[in-house]
Amino acid sequence: MNMNMNMKPVRVGLLGIGTVGGGTYQVLARNHGEITRRAGRPIEIVMVADKDLARAREVTGGRTQITDDAFAVVNDPDIDVIVELIGGCTVARELVLKALNNGKHVVTANKALIATHGNAIFAAASKRGVMVGFEAAVAGGIPIIKVMREALTANRIQWLAGIINGTCNFILTEMRNHGRDFKAALADAQQRGYAEADPTFDIEGVDAAHKLTILAALAFGIPLQFDKVHVEGITQVAREDVAYAGALGYRVKLLGLARRRPEGIEMRVHPTLIPETRLIANVDGVMNAVVVRGDAVGPLLFYGAGAGAQPTASAVVADLVDVARSMSARPEHRVPHLAFQPDAVADVPILPVDKIESAYYLRITALDRPGVLADISRILADRDISIEAIRQPEPAEGQQQVPVIILTQRVMEQSINEAIKHLESLQSVQGPIVRLRVETLA
Amino acid sequence: MNMNMNMKPVRVGLLGIGTVGGGTYQVLARNHGEITRRAGRPIEIVMVADKDLARAREVTGGRTQITDDAFAVVNDPDIDVIVELIGGCTVARELVLKALNNGKHVVTANKALIATHGNAIFAAASKRGVMVGFEAAVAGGIPIIKVMREALTANRIQWLAGIINGTCNFILTEMRNHGRDFKAALADAQQRGYAEADPTFDIEGVDAAHKLTILAALAFGIPLQFDKVHVEGITQVAREDVAYAGALGYRVKLLGLARRRPEGIEMRVHPTLIPETRLIANVDGVMNAVVVRGDAVGPLLFYGAGAGAQPTASAVVADLVDVARSMSARPEHRVPHLAFQPDAVADVPILPVDKIESAYYLRITALDRPGVLADISRILADRDISIEAIRQPEPAEGQQQVPVIILTQRVMEQSINEAIKHLESLQSVQGPIVRLRVETLA
Repeated sequence: MNMNMNMKPVRVGLLGIGTVGGGTYQVLARNHGEITRRAGRPIEIVMVADKDLARAREVTGGRTQITDDAFAVVNDPDIDVIVELIGGCTVARELVLKALNNGKHVVTANKALIATHGNAIFAAASKRGVMVGFEAAVAGGIPIIKVMREALTANRIQWLAGIINGTCNFILTEMRNHGRDFKAALADAQQRGYAEADPTFDIEGVDAAHKLTILAALAFGIPLQFDKVHVEGITQVAREDVAYAGALGYRVKLLGLARRRPEGIEMRVHPTLIPETRLIANVDGVMNAVVVRGDAVGPLLFYGAGAGAQPTASAVVADLVDVARSMSARPEHRVPHLAFQPDAVADVPILPVDKIESAYYLRITALDRPGVLADISRILADRDISIEAIRQPEPAEGQQQVPVIILTQRVMEQSINEAIKHLESLQSVQGPIVRLRVETLA
Repeated sequence: MNMNMNMKPVRVGLLGIGTVGGGTYQVLARNHGEITRRAGRPIEIVMVADKDLARAREVTGGRTQITDDAFAVVNDPDIDVIVELIGGCTVARELVLKALNNGKHVVTANKALIATHGNAIFAAASKRGVMVGFEAAVAGGIPIIKVMREALTANRIQWLAGIINGTCNFILTEMRNHGRDFKAALADAQQRGYAEADPTFDIEGVDAAHKLTILAALAFGIPLQFDKVHVEGITQVAREDVAYAGALGYRVKLLGLARRRPEGIEMRVHPTLIPETRLIANVDGVMNAVVVRGDAVGPLLFYGAGAGAQPTASAVVADLVDVARSMSARPEHRVPHLAFQPDAVADVPILPVDKIESAYYLRITALDRPGVLADISRILADRDISIEAIRQPEPAEGQQQVPVIILTQRVMEQSINEAIKHLESLQSVQGPIVRLRVETLA
């Protein structure tokens, strides 16, 4: 392996040595030989910046220069690549832009930053002819960014759907397997370290929406448009709906879904019923999975750990190897940041949520009297909403209210919302109707 | 999209316009705009060679020059890339080597050729500084070659296991779902076009072994060594073993398996019991899937269509885009053919099959008399073989022989073979013992 002698190492500055930063440092050290055999040259972290100098010292064991001034790292002329693992969109954004303007390549795991400032960041990178790697920003260790950018280039992508938030998937799995309600399952997730003390970003679907924004841009050749994603979290998912869905052969998952329609593109994150016969419906706990359907290849599924120090480090280091392999190639020969050439990004409209198409699960609380089903069926039929299945569990003895579960066929969301408004005005219907979307992913 | 005007098209010569060749031609034509938006330049098939000129004329519709002389194509100085879709190791090998020596890049779906002549082919390519793409050679539309070469570069790969032959998976799925025996399921597969008239290569595991050879080289940085793969097909899998395995919570799949052990590397293809709780156990019909376990990323699963005109074309065209993106880059910056730099390929020993470690399923036909289980247990215990589960289905009325089903814990294959020899010598044991390997893939 005499190449190691001849090839100049890639000099990396690491910003942030918390969970993922520590994992990245460890993986690069542990697999140094194996990585060099692949990359053709050593990849070396030469400087680490972290506010917590004690932690930085502990992880690096005194083998790497440390500093609490991240700007000193991005301004160091001896550094080729910056790995940004600080997170957030304030200091991280400044540092990334500064690094790019200084002509350094950047690798980041920062989904919020890419989803909300990616267009500007990639423009800055292109201007200086440097690369931004962000494999770790979506689905942790699953190489979905590489797949979308490089492996599906023959295809017109029809849709993609992902379980891309491990916290939500853990909570929904617990609700199903142990009949827990949302709050109890969240508390369990927090105790196990799968949910943060403030879990808002995860359980409200914001984190999944960041990731979906990125995947949709790569799939359809559109700009990053986080503000156009329709986002619903899982806080309103009731234990009984998970159970009723199960009885009908469905699992409830928080899906990020992007679909090409003739009128435009759907981008949405929400709890979704999926038939249990689909592989993705059986992705449980904190694991992630993404299904992509291309017109040539058909459906593909990619499954793995969506978070964690070492899986995320696997993605960060893969990006570093890609940079090492192509940093001396001419910029126009590199893989474009958003899969399509920058001047070939298309301005396809993103559909508002009332124009999406989906099948629906409805739970209607009705008085147990004759004619209720006839009334409900008529209102749906009047709007051309076909019923796929209808279930009316026996009411408990003496109970006046019964749940009516309805699965509809695909229809425009506007229609179902109008039907729901009408149904809720029926005297025999009590309180609000629960509505969940159903996707067969066929 | 003014780049299209400025960028010279990539000129492709297509050898063989059968199923996959026809699919490739169609995908490139249908998605020409989308592909160009990604690749940054048009990819154009400028010449097609096929012995069947009438078919070539029909598929190309007179829009492309056709010839029945493939050597004229590989010798044409105006062609940049040769796509070899003829198959086999005779003419195809000559054509590929000729094309490489002429300084042309090659894209091929030919697993037999890569598995058995890949080392020489890659050496010839490196000598001339050209690329060989072979994504379509393994698992059809699943981008497993790209993943192994580029996405897992941070990891020390521990093992990989794949359902990489759709014909066998269809047959085994039929046997399980409909209680068919092997012959009936094979006939069904042939009728549906999932198995060839002479299905030997598929059902004897040779095709899967070709693919495993390639995956193992990419995973461990070893040369291609097809002749060292232990290969067993599915012709001996009995209907009742599929059923007994099912009752124990296992599915029988033809797996290609490569595992790193301290003593060396295991490479083997054989019918395997997998716990039904694993996602890969639920990959049915003609679909393929590969699980890879890296030390950082943990287990990843990749699922999709393993064959067919359009899915395979998806992989061929992805390789063409990769070539288009990097053909003008300096050769040493490109991704190495076998994932590791050529001078970093390691000479790790491949273990003979009696040195592999596995758990085992045994079906022993025994006389229904007291003491049989005690005899069996003692023989296993004498060789330190621990029993995981034992089942003795009730014999039919008046029947003297009963099946005894045993699941063992992991043990070296040599030990189980010795134990079987001993067990078969027992007077109470009738006829040969059925032995299948069990992998939990944990």
